Amino acid sequence: MAKKVKANAGNAGIVKVKTFEFEGSLQLESGKSLGPITIAYETWGTLNHDRSNAVLIAHAFSGDSHAAGFYEGETVPGWWDDLIGPEKAFDTDKYFIICPNVIGGCRGSTGPASINPATGKPYATAFPIVTIGDMVLAQKKLIDHLGIKKLLSVAGGSMGGMLALEWAAQYPDSVASVIPIAAALKHSPQQIAFDEVGRQAVMADPNWNGGNYYGGSAPEKGLAVARMIGHITYMSKSSMEEKFSRRLKNDDLSFSFNADFEVERYLRYRGENFVGRFDANSYLYITKAMDYFDLSGEKFFGRNKTINTKFLVIAFTSDWLYPVEQSKEIVKLMKSRHVDVSFCEIQSEYGHDSFLVETDEESHLIKHFLKGLA
Amino acid sequence: MAKKVKANAGNAGIVKVKTFEFEGSLQLESGKSLGPITIAYETWGTLNHDRSNAVLIAHAFSGDSHAAGFYEGETVPGWWDDLIGPEKAFDTDKYFIICPNVIGGCRGSTGPASINPATGKPYATAFPIVTIGDMVLAQKKLIDHLGIKKLLSVAGGSMGGMLALEWAAQYPDSVASVIPIAAALKHSPQQIAFDEVGRQAVMADPNWNGGNYYGGSAPEKGLAVARMIGHITYMSKSSMEEKFSRRLKNDDLSFSFNADFEVERYLRYRGENFVGRFDANSYLYITKAMDYFDLSGEKFFGRNKTINTKFLVIAFTSDWLYPVEQSKEIVKLMKSRHVDVSFCEIQSEYGHDSFLVETDEESHLIKHFLKGLA
Repeated sequence: MAKKVKANAGNAGIVKVKTFEFEGSLQLESGKSLGPITIAYETWGTLNHDRSNAVLIAHAFSGDSHAAGFYEGETVPGWWDDLIGPEKAFDTDKYFIICPNVIGGCRGSTGPASINPATGKPYATAFPIVTIGDMVLAQKKLIDHLGIKKLLSVAGGSMGGMLALEWAAQYPDSVASVIPIAAALKHSPQQIAFDEVGRQAVMADPNWNGGNYYGGSAPEKGLAVARMIGHITYMSKSSMEEKFSRRLKNDDLSFSFNADFEVERYLRYRGENFVGRFDANSYLYITKAMDYFDLSGEKFFGRNKTINTKFLVIAFTSDWLYPVEQSKEIVKLMKSRHVDVSFCEIQSEYGHDSFLVETDEESHLIKHFLKGLA
Repeated sequence: MAKKVKANAGNAGIVKVKTFEFEGSLQLESGKSLGPITIAYETWGTLNHDRSNAVLIAHAFSGDSHAAGFYEGETVPGWWDDLIGPEKAFDTDKYFIICPNVIGGCRGSTGPASINPATGKPYATAFPIVTIGDMVLAQKKLIDHLGIKKLLSVAGGSMGGMLALEWAAQYPDSVASVIPIAAALKHSPQQIAFDEVGRQAVMADPNWNGGNYYGGSAPEKGLAVARMIGHITYMSKSSMEEKFSRRLKNDDLSFSFNADFEVERYLRYRGENFVGRFDANSYLYITKAMDYFDLSGEKFFGRNKTINTKFLVIAFTSDWLYPVEQSKEIVKLMKSRHVDVSFCEIQSEYGHDSFLVETDEESHLIKHFLKGLA
């Protein structure tokens, strides 16, 4: 059944990045302000007459606005293409799908690599620390700009799930439902620790130069190490075993510090590949935003005592970075406040990456959840 | 009962590092040779008349020969002091305990920082790749030098457990028993991956300079990052939660890239602390030795079809780096070949570090196992 969703589905077609320029400035949680702001976003499907079919897709840490379809002339689709398109879970024949890049990022929205209007040079570390709350504040400006009073849903995995949670906490009247996947109400010390080591790897690279490397050599080696750490945490022990085992890259051990094992070759490749498409300062800003995020306990209901937003919480059994327990904490908290919450634990071997690859069952759940909202 | 072992026990006293100079050279697994070799070691207790009470303690990756007692004028005891001393598990009133530093290390035994007799300069990366098998080969030379025909036991945690396994595979007639703790027959791809990221962090530091940094600035930042990764893997999620939770270093968030959380401060401290006592090249060599180690399946019995060595295998429930499953694989392999093997899974919250800190139950098990050998 779930398989059919994918098999019958078409694709989301050719898509272009749009931009929204917000001329005012945002009051950030830090007390600082940021503006003007550009938000890069993509859309699929058509906004209906009463503007009630809009779904916001929130991307994960290293994601971007390219959630589905193809850029002109390209053959690799967006990162959640399995879920977004005609007859797919986020059915573009029914829904108007919006995916904005977060502020602090480096894929078109204002971030540390953007020009600081005060100096005419890239912000670098003069860019203010932004929080998940600040990112959602900026996304709300985009939604207002598009004339949407209430989103049908906000959905996302990993950091995208945190953004969905933040939407429900900050603007419960503007979002009918949220779908946090492989997410958490707050980072555990282990999650903070992995992020901090990644930041230290970036900042240990002399090319980082206090954040001022634009126009010169970027801290590519440090960023690659950070990304390698990330990739270990995104996979499960068993998916690594399945994918690499102890297979050698060549016939024999090299008896050198070359990559001997397939897993070493893979990590090096992933690290090197990442530096071409991601800004090291954004790595610092976005991980910090995730580490600061905390909607546990009373914090969730601090601004809005009553929340009518419906929740579909999804977790994956083999995810050890955002373990099932953290999703259960979301469910428990919502139940304690009589919020309408459904929970599904998907059996999967792919670890945290499951939200990107275990798309059949995910599609099935989301499709029916969205149908139920109508 | 187990508590008593510790409470009643004395300490191992003042100890000095000894050295053994092996004038010949070792034929290494890589085909290269290494020599002459210095082995730094410490001993506690007295070798009995028939030389039958010797126990070799094998240290973990970043350990050294200082397993117990105190250096003159120092107040911090050796790393396994809870287990070694009068009336302790490794009872120095009964046993003669020997702990050598591994070759490839940097704590007195020949390693990449040692002078290469061919050039009069430190080996650096001209030092040959050594394996766990090569390390044991060197330890055997020390044991021969001490006039010991057969060790009563070889015991160690983590890499120390691999060395113990290697002793049993390579010299089963020279070791009556082995006690591999929190160890494995081979590294999984996840374990290789963590090691590889650590190596990449070291080699990404420009001060590493292809390994040629002796006499200049060492790759301290890269090595610190590598160590931080290590520390995350040594603790369990729950012990991190217990120790740090999301406690802040100061009263408020800094809204900067300073360390905000206690866990960040701790990791930075651990990283900085490590660089003062460990050589970055040894980090590379020793992790590579662990990654190459593979005694799974027929490899264990390749050289010796019959093994009369007795096994006590110990694992800790919360150890996710060397999970209980890996210890069970040792047990399963030994049982399949009718080797005498006992297995104990200790309930513990401390993750991989448990073998260093969960010493009460460990003591109890080891004490009785050794008694049973007599």
